[in-house]
This record gives sequence, C-alpha cells and structure tokens, in this order.
Amino acid sequence: MKLASLKAGGRDGTLVVVSKDLAKATKVPEIAATMQLALDRWSDVGERLRSVYDKLNGGEIADAFELNHADLAAPLPRAYQWCDGSAYLSHAELVRKARGAEMPESLYSDPLIYQGGSDQMIGPRDDIVLADEGWGIDLEAELAVITDDVPMGITAEEAVGHIKLVTILNDVSLRLLMPAELAKGFGFFQSKPSTAFAPVFVTPDELGDAWDGRKLSLPLVSHVNSELLGRPDAGVDLNFDFPTLVAHATKSRSLGAGTIIGSGTVSNRDRSVGSSCLQERRMIEKIETGEIKTPFLKFGDVVRVEMMDKTGTSIFGPIEQKVVRYERPAV
Amino acid sequence: MKLASLKAGGRDGTLVVVSKDLAKATKVPEIAATMQLALDRWSDVGERLRSVYDKLNGGEIADAFELNHADLAAPLPRAYQWCDGSAYLSHAELVRKARGAEMPESLYSDPLIYQGGSDQMIGPRDDIVLADEGWGIDLEAELAVITDDVPMGITAEEAVGHIKLVTILNDVSLRLLMPAELAKGFGFFQSKPSTAFAPVFVTPDELGDAWDGRKLSLPLVSHVNSELLGRPDAGVDLNFDFPTLVAHATKSRSLGAGTIIGSGTVSNRDRSVGSSCLQERRMIEKIETGEIKTPFLKFGDVVRVEMMDKTGTSIFGPIEQKVVRYERPAV
Repeated sequence: MKLASLKAGGRDGTLVVVSKDLAKATKVPEIAATMQLALDRWSDVGERLRSVYDKLNGGEIADAFELNHADLAAPLPRAYQWCDGSAYLSHAELVRKARGAEMPESLYSDPLIYQGGSDQMIGPRDDIVLADEGWGIDLEAELAVITDDVPMGITAEEAVGHIKLVTILNDVSLRLLMPAELAKGFGFFQSKPSTAFAPVFVTPDELGDAWDGRKLSLPLVSHVNSELLGRPDAGVDLNFDFPTLVAHATKSRSLGAGTIIGSGTVSNRDRSVGSSCLQERRMIEKIETGEIKTPFLKFGDVVRVEMMDKTGTSIFGPIEQKVVRYERPAV
Repeated sequence: MKLASLKAGGRDGTLVVVSKDLAKATKVPEIAATMQLALDRWSDVGERLRSVYDKLNGGEIADAFELNHADLAAPLPRAYQWCDGSAYLSHAELVRKARGAEMPESLYSDPLIYQGGSDQMIGPRDDIVLADEGWGIDLEAELAVITDDVPMGITAEEAVGHIKLVTILNDVSLRLLMPAELAKGFGFFQSKPSTAFAPVFVTPDELGDAWDGRKLSLPLVSHVNSELLGRPDAGVDLNFDFPTLVAHATKSRSLGAGTIIGSGTVSNRDRSVGSSCLQERRMIEKIETGEIKTPFLKFGDVVRVEMMDKTGTSIFGPIEQKVVRYERPAV
C-alpha cells in the first residue's frame, strides 16, 4: 500500500491512497482525512485503506484521479516526532573528519540518534529555500520508518512489529553552520532546516524480499543537476538497523503514533558507489587528491533522490528539489 | 485569558477556557476543539476565546464546571515544535562544571537552543515515570512562550508580536545519561524524557507589568518533597530574552503555529535564592563545602513548580509530579 498527502486541505493536507505505479490517487475521507489521523488509528484503518489500494490498482475506483507530484506535501506535513539516526558509520567518519570533530569510540557500539524538528516537513517537489548560499547547503539522502504507538523500554525484537511504513527523505544540512552550533554541545537546530520527503509512505510488504523486517537492501540513488552523486545500498554497512534505532529511542519515553525514525545518510565503505551527500564526496576528494573540487549546493541547483526496486521501478517516487534564495515577504 | 486541555477527548485533549482563579472551566467546541486548532487559527479565534473568558470570570457561563487539575493534560498534549533554550548562563556554567564539560565562549554572545521532543507532553499532575532511579533524575523549572506562525529570518523586534501565550514547565532531565549521550555530539534524546507543563497557557496581558514583552520578572518557585529548592526571579540574569530566542530559531526555517520556545532552567547568580534544579544545588554544595549532599530524585519523591503574581496568587497553577518506577505493561 502507498499513501501520500495532498497539499490541499489545510496544514495537515489530505490523505490519499496512491496506486502502485504512483500515477493515480483517491481521497479517503470516510476512512481518515489526514495521514496523522490514519496513524492515530492504524489498527482500525490499515485494512480499510488496503482494500481501497487494491481496488485502485484494479481500476475499480470511479473517482480516482491522475496524481501530479507537485501537488503533494510531505506524507506527514507536520509530525510530532522526528528522530534521526546516524546508523552508517562510514558517513559519520567522513563528515566528522571534514569538520575536525572526534569520532567517539561509543559510536561503534551505541546508536547515535538526535531529535529533529518536525513542524514543517516539505514535499517532494518543494524548493529548498534558504537565505544564504554560504551556509554550505548539502543534501543527505536517507531512509526512514514510521511507527504506531511504541511503549517505553522495548527491545529491538519487539520494535519490529511497530514499523508500519517506510519512506526516503532528504535531510537538508547546512555544513558550514554546524561547527559553531555543535560546539555549543546540544546538537543541531539552525544547521538542519526543513526535511523533504518522498511522495509516498509505503507498507513494508511493498518492498518484497528487499525488506527483511530490519533493513531495506536496495540502492538509494542521488543526483545533483542530473549528475550521479551516488547509489550506495541501504542494506550494506548499516551499523544499527531500524528496530535497534526504535528500541534505542524508547529508553526513557514512549513514542507517539506517527513517529519518524531516520537511518542517517546512507553510506557504503565501497567508494565506487559514490555518496548520498556532498560533504562525503568532498572529504573523499581531499583524502584521495588533497584538493576539494565539489562545491556545496548553489541557488538554482537541483537535487534528486530516488529508490528503484529490482525491476527498475520507482518505489517511493522521486524527491526533486531546487535550491532557491529566500526573500522575506513584504510586511 | 487562560487556556488548558482536558485529557478527555482524545490524543489532543479538549480545549477549555479556564477562569482567572483556575477554579472553573468551560469547553469551547464551537470555537476550537483543541489547543492546536486554536493556535492554527489564532487571529480568527483569539478574540472569541477572550469573550468566553470574560463571561466565565463574570459568572455568566451556565455550563461552567469545577476544574479538577488532575483531569488536565499538558495544554498542548502533543506539539509540533519544542525548542528549548539555555538562556540563564549561571545555570549553564554550574551544570557544565558538574559534568566536566566546556563552557564555550560563544555561549555568552550566541543563544543556545536545542531541539526537544514533543510527541508526548505530560500534564501538571502526571507522574514522572522512569525505569531506573540511577539515571540521575532531576527537575528543571523553566518558562516558555508559545508562538503563532513565525516567518523565517525575523529580528527579535519582529518576534515580540509572535508571542501569543506564556507558561511554565518542568523539563525533566536524566543527569547521569547526559555525559555519554552528549559525548556523541548531537545533543539530548534519552536524557530528556517527556516534559511536564503547568495547567494553563496564559496570554501576556494576564502577567501585568511583570511581562515587558520580552521577559517575565517574577520568581519561579520549586519545591522537592515540600522543601523549598529555589525561587530565582525569571527576569534576572536572563542572558537572552524570549524574542531573541525566537529570532535565533528562525535563521534557517519558519516556525509553525504552536511552537513552544523554552527559556532553559531559570537561574540567578544570587545563590541565596536557591535553584530550579537539583544539579545546580549539588554543584554549589561541592564548590562551597567540597561535598555533594543533595541526591537526585528517587521513586516516591514529589516535585512542585509554581509562579505567583505580586499578590501571591498562582498564575499558571502548580506542576506537581511524583517520581514513579516504570513497569512494562504485560504483553
């Protein structure tokens, strides 16, 4: 099953069931008006949504409409909990080296998660709007899972069943704001602007045997201005799988329905597959040639993040965003 | 005007207008069913809610009921953005010293804010439920403001008008989980469990001349097991006022309606007024006598946080919480 949110309908958008080929959609107000309302009552509405999905794929929904991806908000346009991990340590090693930061030994045994901001998630075709090109604008292509209500203090084995939906995202990062912000000791705020999401969330069964209940073993493909940046396999070199991240997040709290748990930037140790962010490529250039050639994103640049199944079909639809200068609205 | 949320009515509770003396309340489904819905349409509903408030105080609401504070959720039971500051540097200096952390020079000129978790805010009489007494359980008594929609990149002067509501809170902290978590470099997650809020949010006009548009100059009073912990004045030794914190948070993002911006633990350099958390008192004991006498919170301990106006009347109502051992529900 694939689910999305139209921008139309208010701050939380309008929930739509999307066809497997991402071409058609239908509203489901009689089941749930918004994605959050569906997640709040997942055990009641999940099967009803699936029944609509089956009919939509079978061409049996009379009022199904052609889906224009530019009409889509993030599947959860605003969320209550966005907890991002840093589960690919080859990424952590490279970007920390780039900013001259330590790589604490604990990172190899204890998952690193951080609290993201979730009041303004942006859609798959929304611009990346920022005031200053000099902040070191970068993409970070990631995977994420979405949970139902998760009790406090569960194990990774128990977490498996709480993963209800899967997606990909672009965790936009401002590399040159990070050193000063992280030096203050309490993590990111200004250096992590709004995160962009793929057109749809999908249920794990859509992923076939690429999903083993704990990780998704397919390449995540990133382009900048139509040039391939990388296609690392999300199932390779993952130091902490999703149930482990979910369990880690529950040590001292329960998690509300609709919690989004991210993997962190997908990264493989095999450098021939490229990277999911520019900072990694820049660091590899420096290590290999002594010189950084790749710039950060500039106004007008376009990033594209996508994941295809084994037949080459896009699972989540592409995230395709242009970097645009922020202009203050006239008062 | 004073506003609260009953636990009854679902995940977002039920919005009620509360009388000035915090004794009576009335539901307002014809105006807004929940606090978030009111904040989403504040410019439309603010005056209508105020009209109900005036009638409630005048005894003109026929179906007003006696308000039992144990029936209250946090005024925003789940929020989209909880951005906490660390604006009282006397607190930052003491707690960083306690965990052997640096006090970067930048903290004296650049506000420190961090991204809090907001999917499960807890009510003023809710227990602090945690699995392990050995985590260094501490209270942190703070102030917070709640905003409407705030554009990206505004100035502190522009931020003043976006502050719609004010409250107090207990930002429960797990001191002994912090050193290892902060060493990983990306801030708090496990070491900051659910935050508890006062019974009500109030509009700034309720604060009289104690509120100057930028800060609230009244003592914030904290007790542990009926013993006074401290009563520092929230208007004293505040290094960064609320509009400055709001503006800082908008550098690379807009803020959604219902954003909560916290002051960080209220702390004065005058040690005779005591502290708003145990860690400060412990550090002062160590500095003054070489020996820490005050323990962290234990199961069964009760904390109380409150703020009175100049006539001694409670403005927000008390936060009164017992620390309780978490028991996993039977599967």
